[in-house]
Amino acid sequence: MQILFDDKFIPRNQARVDIEDRGYQFGDGIYEVIRVYGGKMFCLEAHLRRFAKSASEIRMELPHSPERLQILLEELVRTNGLTEGNVYLQASRGTAPRNHPFPEHCRSQVVAYTMEASRPLQTLKEGIRAITDRDIRWLRCDIKSLNLLGAVLAKQNAVDRGCQEAILHRDGRVTEGSSTNVFMVREGTLITHPADNLILHGITREVVLELAREEGIPVREEAPSVEALFRADEVFITSTTMEVAPVISIDGRTVGEGSPGPVTRRLQNAFEKQIGKK
Amino acid sequence: MQILFDDKFIPRNQARVDIEDRGYQFGDGIYEVIRVYGGKMFCLEAHLRRFAKSASEIRMELPHSPERLQILLEELVRTNGLTEGNVYLQASRGTAPRNHPFPEHCRSQVVAYTMEASRPLQTLKEGIRAITDRDIRWLRCDIKSLNLLGAVLAKQNAVDRGCQEAILHRDGRVTEGSSTNVFMVREGTLITHPADNLILHGITREVVLELAREEGIPVREEAPSVEALFRADEVFITSTTMEVAPVISIDGRTVGEGSPGPVTRRLQNAFEKQIGKK
Repeated sequence: MQILFDDKFIPRNQARVDIEDRGYQFGDGIYEVIRVYGGKMFCLEAHLRRFAKSASEIRMELPHSPERLQILLEELVRTNGLTEGNVYLQASRGTAPRNHPFPEHCRSQVVAYTMEASRPLQTLKEGIRAITDRDIRWLRCDIKSLNLLGAVLAKQNAVDRGCQEAILHRDGRVTEGSSTNVFMVREGTLITHPADNLILHGITREVVLELAREEGIPVREEAPSVEALFRADEVFITSTTMEVAPVISIDGRTVGEGSPGPVTRRLQNAFEKQIGKK
Repeated sequence: MQILFDDKFIPRNQARVDIEDRGYQFGDGIYEVIRVYGGKMFCLEAHLRRFAKSASEIRMELPHSPERLQILLEELVRTNGLTEGNVYLQASRGTAPRNHPFPEHCRSQVVAYTMEASRPLQTLKEGIRAITDRDIRWLRCDIKSLNLLGAVLAKQNAVDRGCQEAILHRDGRVTEGSSTNVFMVREGTLITHPADNLILHGITREVVLELAREEGIPVREEAPSVEALFRADEVFITSTTMEVAPVISIDGRTVGEGSPGPVTRRLQNAFEKQIGKK
């Protein structure tokens, strides 16, 4: 397997970074995970736009334009012969003697590689189990940064309890999942946290909101209370790798009928039709 | 220069980690910075205790006991002939295919190296300028983790305004500096944020509190308001590398007389006497 490293392609076992790479010491960097369906990256432009936005928010200069990055990533996918899976793309601020402020002379380090993965078809059909957990992350979750320890600990809490996702709440309000956005359906209306500083502005989230509008499903972008989540008719999570995944239980309590609900299924079907189109 | 890498000593230019080291992708790791005075690590046992505590809080197993780590670090300092400077010590959860939950098979990666640095004598005498900034970090700042992007951005905000530190506040209350603890003096009483989840439990902070008690200086561990900070008679910051550094202006407003105050100087003198003892 080849790795995109700066603007070169190198073998996997050579892809190593210096111990003073700021990604390693400060989590000073950003990333994207891009889904590949049938050899084609899904919503690539949106991912590259968000990547550039994250870089700009942490005031990091990227060495490649989105156009150049697109060409490099397409070459990566082709070279590795990936048809079904993900592209992981990361950029750190680069290597410099350890010190908190931005270094003066430092070139950001781009790394990208491919991972084979089939679609989560069984999960899409059967749904997942989730826990609730306190959202202890920083107040700029809109930046897709490498500071993911809060998300890691929450996800592990879910795994420890035999679940697949932790639904986070801050001050009694549901924000998002540890690596997904969260939606609930109540009396036919789709409700999800607004795209502010407390959640990642998920690309699948955006696709789903667009599809809901096309389907005539009423949407409210507001943060539901944890209690409202428990009373929801349907709950689902979205992400690049999980797509539109029904949540059938939360903290051991059954959601709705305990099976994927009608609005969730409508959106899953609509999403399915987008695959290969974007 | 030699680097401690796992339990081996390797040349600096060979010290590289895999791109799927979880330190690099999630900031999933912890660190310490230990001051070396006259070839001897200051408060080493306290640092190793905190290192073990941070590891335990993120449920990471360290490959070395504190005793073994002490021997390795002492060898590192000796090998590199360091007399004045710092030891940087880090451990990440190790390398595994990227996925949020803890990997099943994964050995944590220890890295340590030395940096020459003289004491900040001029700063100790003249003081530093600080800004105030919103504390946007996560709610487990007591864990000395590699998720430092919030601290990096705050420190850079300070540098942008010609200052050396950003004093952070959350909900109107002063927590700590971006890489230091913050103390203020009001009518002879020393006030600093309690050692809870919102601040790092600084080792220099602890030494200073101990010295204050020995000196008969009244101490209150409570979070001062930003307004109280501006009205303080004296303000100083503490850290392993900054020791006890007076703050002479905040957001361009003079603190006290605009020079290191009497309580700060008393504590600086008392701290000076500890060097070489701990």
